[in-house]
Amino acid sequence: MKYLAKVYITLKKSILDPQGRTVERSLHNQGYASVLNARVGKYIELTFEGDRSKIETELKDIAENILSNPVMESVHWDLEQVEQQVH
Amino acid sequence: MKYLAKVYITLKKSILDPQGRTVERSLHNQGYASVLNARVGKYIELTFEGDRSKIETELKDIAENILSNPVMESVHWDLEQVEQQVH
Repeated sequence: MKYLAKVYITLKKSILDPQGRTVERSLHNQGYASVLNARVGKYIELTFEGDRSKIETELKDIAENILSNPVMESVHWDLEQVEQQVH
Repeated sequence: MKYLAKVYITLKKSILDPQGRTVERSLHNQGYASVLNARVGKYIELTFEGDRSKIETELKDIAENILSNPVMESVHWDLEQVEQQVH
């Protein structure tokens, strides 16, 4: 069974996000005054094949310990099945 | 009314993603053999204040023309209300 994991990584609220500030200012300069704030993060798609419960364990480990830095970043993820086994 | 827009930007399927390939190889080297593929993209959170229909128009323009490169990237987004006006 194939699964698609979507991992979202953002800087923690308390961490200054200079890239987000730049996006925010650039949007203001282009006339988008209704934008109050911008934060830039990472979005990672992982395709897995195997048993769901094993994948869930691996995914938690990968997302929390490999893809993100727990000191500065928050991470969350979704896991969805992408392919039904049809016979 | 305040709204939170979540913008997801990924490289198009046909575009080689060296950063994703590196993540994939690194995960394999660490024993995560069930990972078939990794793609790395951007995740941008924008906070808006104002009228929803105006924000939707602005957000489409910002996401498609400013935050992403339509030649190489695909973009999609969600918009949700974050603050209820309570009297």
